[in-house]
Amino acid sequence: MKAKVHVFLKPGVLDVQGKAVEGALHGLGWADVKNVRVGKTIEFDVADGANAEADVKAMCEKLLANTVIESYRIELA
Amino acid sequence: MKAKVHVFLKPGVLDVQGKAVEGALHGLGWADVKNVRVGKTIEFDVADGANAEADVKAMCEKLLANTVIESYRIELA
Repeated sequence: MKAKVHVFLKPGVLDVQGKAVEGALHGLGWADVKNVRVGKTIEFDVADGANAEADVKAMCEKLLANTVIESYRIELA
Repeated sequence: MKAKVHVFLKPGVLDVQGKAVEGALHGLGWADVKNVRVGKTIEFDVADGANAEADVKAMCEKLLANTVIESYRIELA
């Protein structure tokens, strides 16, 4: 089973990497680009099974996301 | 218009961050996790228009992805 985890900074947390990308895009002439946020995506294969979703959720809570400042979204396929 | 750009290392390029995450997950007891790849997701607002997709493609080629070792996928919504 393929799992995809998207990790983003929570709204309100300053995204310095996003700000840097936004500044660079403005500098390259795309002045209309706004609200740039940079996140991580982690893709991996996980064993099939009824508890795959619970497993991936536990992985997020323990390792993949810093839940104090980051939110995550899980996609299983 | 909301744009999402997913950037991943091309297959065959060693993903050291992915390997590190995989090792950590194995250490935490999820021994069945395989093929971990870590990528970036960049989300931003871009001006509506017929050339939005071409614009975002140009941003990827110029700044967001290193096309020598990374591939990217664009989602517009």
